[in-house]
Amino acid sequence: MSYKLDYISRLFQRTSSKRIEHYVITRIWHLIDNYDVKITPQQYVTRQHINYALTDVYFPQVGIHVEINEPAHYYSNDRIINDLKRRKEIETNTGHSVFVIDCSLELKEIHSQIDELVSLIKKSVNEKVAKGTFKPWCPEKEHNPIYWKEKGIITISDEVSFHTIEDICLLFDADHRKTIRGFLRKGGIQNPKRNDLFIWWPSERQRSGWINTYDEINGTITETHSDTKKKVDHFNWHTQGSHYRIVFFHYKDILGLTNYKYVGVFTNDKELSNAEIGTVWTRIGETINIMDAEYQ
Amino acid sequence: MSYKLDYISRLFQRTSSKRIEHYVITRIWHLIDNYDVKITPQQYVTRQHINYALTDVYFPQVGIHVEINEPAHYYSNDRIINDLKRRKEIETNTGHSVFVIDCSLELKEIHSQIDELVSLIKKSVNEKVAKGTFKPWCPEKEHNPIYWKEKGIITISDEVSFHTIEDICLLFDADHRKTIRGFLRKGGIQNPKRNDLFIWWPSERQRSGWINTYDEINGTITETHSDTKKKVDHFNWHTQGSHYRIVFFHYKDILGLTNYKYVGVFTNDKELSNAEIGTVWTRIGETINIMDAEYQ
Repeated sequence: MSYKLDYISRLFQRTSSKRIEHYVITRIWHLIDNYDVKITPQQYVTRQHINYALTDVYFPQVGIHVEINEPAHYYSNDRIINDLKRRKEIETNTGHSVFVIDCSLELKEIHSQIDELVSLIKKSVNEKVAKGTFKPWCPEKEHNPIYWKEKGIITISDEVSFHTIEDICLLFDADHRKTIRGFLRKGGIQNPKRNDLFIWWPSERQRSGWINTYDEINGTITETHSDTKKKVDHFNWHTQGSHYRIVFFHYKDILGLTNYKYVGVFTNDKELSNAEIGTVWTRIGETINIMDAEYQ
Repeated sequence: MSYKLDYISRLFQRTSSKRIEHYVITRIWHLIDNYDVKITPQQYVTRQHINYALTDVYFPQVGIHVEINEPAHYYSNDRIINDLKRRKEIETNTGHSVFVIDCSLELKEIHSQIDELVSLIKKSVNEKVAKGTFKPWCPEKEHNPIYWKEKGIITISDEVSFHTIEDICLLFDADHRKTIRGFLRKGGIQNPKRNDLFIWWPSERQRSGWINTYDEINGTITETHSDTKKKVDHFNWHTQGSHYRIVFFHYKDILGLTNYKYVGVFTNDKELSNAEIGTVWTRIGETINIMDAEYQ
């Protein structure tokens, strides 16, 4: 089976518990009808006060999020206002746009909203193709460290995502054997090309007490520990200087596979970090040159 | 929510356990993109030796079945031959056509098969529209006895399907109170317009020992009983003469609602019936005039 069919059919299956949302997602995909367009489910987008919230689907190549509101969204005024607030926050913080589909309407009207969205996506794609900036969905490249090593540069919009720590090490010519410590796996490795630019693969899953939260909207990662003393020590140590990390965020993708996704270059943020929260890392670069580790 | 959205979204949800089949069904529906076309899941089609088998989806207005073969279908030669045999049987016995989609191929090839099917369905619809014989999908009519009473005639392709026994009685001006016998519900009622044409609503669910099996492909219903004496008595009694029944077959539809679907006029088939099998009823008419109960 082709990877794309496997991916999309699993995405459909995973969204099938919400009937109307699922109907809308299948229709969007089939009407875009372009294998080069990538659709990703449930992108992490964080808001103030709430740990994280999800948009329903996201089109990374054109920066369009889609919120599919089932009829229940429209039963209360509070919910409508909250939805609007949430949408504005996502748009302001990411520069992406959020397209909302109101499913409390009749079938014809739901279809015409989808038609509008599909036109918008196709138009964005065509504009990028004309400018030569469109990056077709190419899973074989996304996951292949050799490809990116030869290319010499990676950027967030490339959707670079490796399946193993070995692949991350291979990209930077780091010795993957040094990532093993007894039965444990280290959370990162020194970059042999530039000592001051650590290579880090944090996870939202707790590991040896460490807890990391990635806020995709604001481009920050919070690194903290379940043990207060370790948390405070970690904060105190980092607060004394400037630290830089190339980050591959760990998650399980829709196919159930482990992924380490490149999310940018981060530095410890002295304003946001404190002894209570822990160390907060803020993105300072989206693109990195593999050879000289220059970022921008 | 509109009935059609409710219906289709439930159909999608119900098929979601088979990933590839589900991907294909959603694509067929969205690319046909015509609210007037009805798609029905898992139509009953019976074959020799096997009690019943299902085609994946069926388009009743144009008589097209679709078989979606997941890659596993192609692992064994026996299975390929069986699939071919099954397809021929359905086509010969029903006069419908069976379109097979081979999902062992690559995504592009699966898509091109779907394109071909969608063109075929659109062409059939357009031809019927041009001839004035196309019956648009209209759930409000399908389930409304007043509509059909005014029309005065029903035929299988109308997809007439009532939600209650009261609705069946209303169509024929029969007194629905006579269908109640203590705590039990009778399996049929005398037709007040023609005594020799009984109105019957059999079910595949066993009721008071009675077991009915509807063979959609061959247009037969087998009526039998779990108790041998009752089965033989019933067979003996029917074999002495010719009996005629207007049949509404009971089933639960995709929305979980009880339905009694008009499937034609049947007579007891003396060749097929025997003391071991029970009484077999064969379809002799597809259309019936409500007023004079003339069938053809």
